[in-house]
Order: sequence, then C-alpha cells, then structure tokens
Amino acid sequence: MKYAFGVDIGGTTVKMGLLEEEGDIVESWEIPTRTENHGINILPDIASSIKNKMEERGMSKADTAGVGIGAPGAVDDNGVVFQAVNLGWTKFNLKETMEDMVDLNVKAGNDANVAALGEAWKGGGRGHSNMLMVTLGTGVGGGVIINGKIVNGVTGSGGEIGHIHIEDEEPNACGCGNHGCFEQYASATGVVLLAKREMANFEKDSVLLHEEITSKNIFDAAKKNDELAVKIAQKYGYYLGKGLATCATILNPEIIVIGGGVSKAGTTLIDLLRPSFEKYVFKGCLDTEFGLAKLGNDAGICGAAKMVLD
Amino acid sequence: MKYAFGVDIGGTTVKMGLLEEEGDIVESWEIPTRTENHGINILPDIASSIKNKMEERGMSKADTAGVGIGAPGAVDDNGVVFQAVNLGWTKFNLKETMEDMVDLNVKAGNDANVAALGEAWKGGGRGHSNMLMVTLGTGVGGGVIINGKIVNGVTGSGGEIGHIHIEDEEPNACGCGNHGCFEQYASATGVVLLAKREMANFEKDSVLLHEEITSKNIFDAAKKNDELAVKIAQKYGYYLGKGLATCATILNPEIIVIGGGVSKAGTTLIDLLRPSFEKYVFKGCLDTEFGLAKLGNDAGICGAAKMVLD
Repeated sequence: MKYAFGVDIGGTTVKMGLLEEEGDIVESWEIPTRTENHGINILPDIASSIKNKMEERGMSKADTAGVGIGAPGAVDDNGVVFQAVNLGWTKFNLKETMEDMVDLNVKAGNDANVAALGEAWKGGGRGHSNMLMVTLGTGVGGGVIINGKIVNGVTGSGGEIGHIHIEDEEPNACGCGNHGCFEQYASATGVVLLAKREMANFEKDSVLLHEEITSKNIFDAAKKNDELAVKIAQKYGYYLGKGLATCATILNPEIIVIGGGVSKAGTTLIDLLRPSFEKYVFKGCLDTEFGLAKLGNDAGICGAAKMVLD
Repeated sequence: MKYAFGVDIGGTTVKMGLLEEEGDIVESWEIPTRTENHGINILPDIASSIKNKMEERGMSKADTAGVGIGAPGAVDDNGVVFQAVNLGWTKFNLKETMEDMVDLNVKAGNDANVAALGEAWKGGGRGHSNMLMVTLGTGVGGGVIINGKIVNGVTGSGGEIGHIHIEDEEPNACGCGNHGCFEQYASATGVVLLAKREMANFEKDSVLLHEEITSKNIFDAAKKNDELAVKIAQKYGYYLGKGLATCATILNPEIIVIGGGVSKAGTTLIDLLRPSFEKYVFKGCLDTEFGLAKLGNDAGICGAAKMVLD
C-alpha cells in the first residue's frame, strides 16, 4: 500500500492530509500559513510537517508516492508558480523547490484545479474523467479535468472560468480589471450585487428588507417563495447558466460539479441555472449532467494527493 | 518505418493519404463520397481503397500503425459517431465498423478536431502541445488540443466554439437554433452579415458598393483603407477577438491557430482581433500566441494519421 501527502495551501492555514492510494484519508491536520517575508517560511514549514509525520509513523520514502500541493495562484504543468499574491510569492518552481526539501516526488497545481481533481476522483464527479468544476465562493474558481488530468494551461491560468466575459452592460470593474466577468454575477459577492440591483426596483415588502443581504438569506427566502428573493435567485441562475453554457459548449464535459459556499443552496441552484443553460448551450451538449461537490474542505488535499498517485 | 493512413471524409470527396510516421505525406488521393442510401457505401469504399493501396505497395499489416478517420459530425473518444447529417449517418461506432472492414487499428474523430491535431503536429501549431484551432469558413469550427490530444467531449461536441454565445442583441437565429453564436459573426457568412449592417448606415462611397460582398473583397478593400471596409473589418475583428478571449480564458493555450477561408486575409486578421482579445481575455492569458494554419486541405489527413501514430 502506497501513501500520498496532499497539501492545500490557503492564505491563513495549510491543510495537510495523508491518504491511502484508494483515496481514504488516514489523517488530516493543519499548520498556519506564515505569509510574512514574502511567504519564505511556508514551504519549509510544510516540509518539516511531512518529515515529522513520516518519522512519527515510521514511514520510509518507499512507502509514499510523494507530495501533491495545491497553491492559490497560477501553476503550470511543470510546477512553476507564476504568482500567488495572497502568499507573497512571485515566480519560482514550487515542485522542484519542495522536492529538494523533502526528497520525495512532488507535483503542484492551482488550488481550484486541484480541488476539481479531488471531486473528480472521489467526490461529486466520481466516475467521470471529463469534468468541469465551478466553485462559487467570494469569487468564482474553476477547474477543467480532461481524461482524468487537470488542464493547467501554459501559464497556469487554465480553468479560470470566473473571468469569461458574459455581460456587455456591466459598469463595475471585476477584481481582475475587466468588466462583465462571470464572477461578477455568479459569486457570493455577485448574488449580493444582483440583490441590490433588484431591490432598487422593488416596491413591495420582502423578508430581505429586514435582514442582512447574504447569498444564504437570499436562497432561503427564495425557497419560501419571497417574491423579491425569487427574482434575485432567478437572475442569479440566469447568469450561472449562461456562463456554464459557454464552458460546456467548448468542453462538452460529462458533468459540471458545483461547489463553494453558494452551492449550499443545493439542487435548487441546478433548477435555477437550467433554463438559461439550455437556452445558451450548443444543442450537442444539452445532456450535460450537473452535480454538487461532496468533499467540502477536503477536496484540496484529496486532489493534491491524487496528482502524485496517478 | 511505420506508415499510417489518414482519411478525411467530406460531403463530396474523401481525401486520403499515406503518411510516414514522421509526418511526410508519401501519397495522397481522393475518392468520391457516395452519400446516397444514408451513406452506406462510404466506409466500404474507403476500406477498398486502403486495401488496394496496401496491395499496390506490397504493404503488410505490420507496416502500418492503422487508419485515422476524420468525419463531419460529432465523434467521441470511443469512435462513436452521434450524427453526421451531410453523410446521412446516424449513431454507430465508426472505429469498430472500419476495424472489421480493414483488420487494422482504427481511430476516428470530428473533422475540425482532427484538422486541429494535424496543425498541432506539423502545421501552424507545431511544437505546441496545448493549442486551440479555429476554422473560419462557411461556419466556425474549432478544435482543442490538450497535452497533444484532441478534446472530443463526452458526446463528440468538444471544441464546438462556433456556438458559444457572444452577443445578446442578435435578432437572427444561428444554424444551430440559438441566437448570438460566435459563428454568426466570425464565419465568412458572418463577415457578409456585418458588412450589410454597416452598409445600411454608411452614406459615402466605397469600392464595396460596386462589387460582390465577400470576405475576400472586404479584407482586400480594408487593406487599401477603404473607409467602409475598414469599419467592417474592425467589427469583424471585435467579434473574433471577443470569442477567442473566452476560449483562451478557459483553456490558457500556448497558441491559437487560425485557419479556413477567411484566414487567407493573413496576419491582418490577428491585428484586427487583438484589441478586443486583450480587452476581454483574463490577464493571465494575455501572452497567448496567434498563428495561421499552414496545412490547408492536408490538415485533415495529417491529423487523422497522427491519431493512430500516437
């Protein structure tokens, strides 16, 4: 039995896991992400933690397939990080740097892409080798899996579906500088933006006028048929379906797996996106399946481990 | 030295080639495509032609890597054709059917995808394993190559970039039934549509008012700074760049190769699309290279042969 380490580097903590080759998580733990001094301590901290764990368990190099790492930035097929703003990192070879530290096989990828691989392996996309994952959080992340492998892209920007252009009339700029990005509508922040715009033209009463405007409150109210919330949820579904239709037309995936905070709204979300998905998608891709992510915060460590187990 | 047969099935002729494993075309020829009776003769005709060629050259099964086939329809990873309207074909396994006929290894793909593989192997995308090809003809075809392999999609519709939605305000329906598809603007037919719309609002003289409105005449006149033609060409470039920006944001390819009749306009086309490409693409993909297709009508037989040589 081979084991693999899965590492998911976030802005405040590094999630780490030791997995069996079939995908069971033997143990998972966290260490703080020390971002000071351009994040110079992050990799040595991870390396120490791995060495300690191997010693603790009496593991040798031969027992492990290696270390997979997901990082919040653009990472290419060779494990080169182009930039990871939240960690203070600029361009360097993450894979080689870590290999020197731990003397194990290392692979690295973008965190959203790595999480997608985790969901394809043992989560919402299980059994599907061609999958698109979309993560609806503060922003919109994406990951494209083709033939069971991540599409990293030449400069590590593969799967950046949050920044496809879907609306010509957007006055606000996206965080990336463009206008009308998918993320501006389909993220948790996007739901709130759409809510404010709908509320400006809504003259009746709504529970949303008496509580904090969050994606959770909006979808909860929509489930209870609050008129304003239903309008907002439908608008959200329109944009979500429109953006995913473009991705599906290009990739023709077996399944689109939806994760991230907004996906807690559940299958309602799939019902909401379907009309505009069907309107905009190429007819040959109409049978695209939809599913919800299942691994939650473990998707990253699972996908990271999978990279070295393949 | 291994040889491979490359077969490119069109609506009126089947282009066939015998290639060396390094990609040199030893010989190429054509046979008619007999589409009557739901195209029942097409594969037996191809099989006979291959057997005759092998006999003529004294080739044995051991001399060949097999037969690659590009067909004008949706074809999945297993060689299943879902439909090929121009040939009269409905769903069947093209790969297995042909294998039974010729007793050789067979692979099959969609013609636009197969042509993209040809261009990636020895044409405009040579040296690049992650490439997007767009073919600007009567329609807009596309082919996505990731790690040197075609992305066929689960129902053979991978790379159908002609049908991504890029314009909300389009009153006309696309051939696919949707409104505002990339193909409605970026095809040769699209240039003519854009020309007619610009002409309706143009009150000065132009050479285009005295000749047939074709994409060739429009780009020729634009090169001579005809004011109307320049407006049309810029509008065309706007849409071409906008659609390709979406594809690049999802795939982050090394290069986008442009082929098809409209690409005869040459590098002008790349200059025309660049402003809107840069406006709409995710910043991490700004360095995407552009190139022109080089293989012309041979792209199909080359890509087809490559499928079985891999």
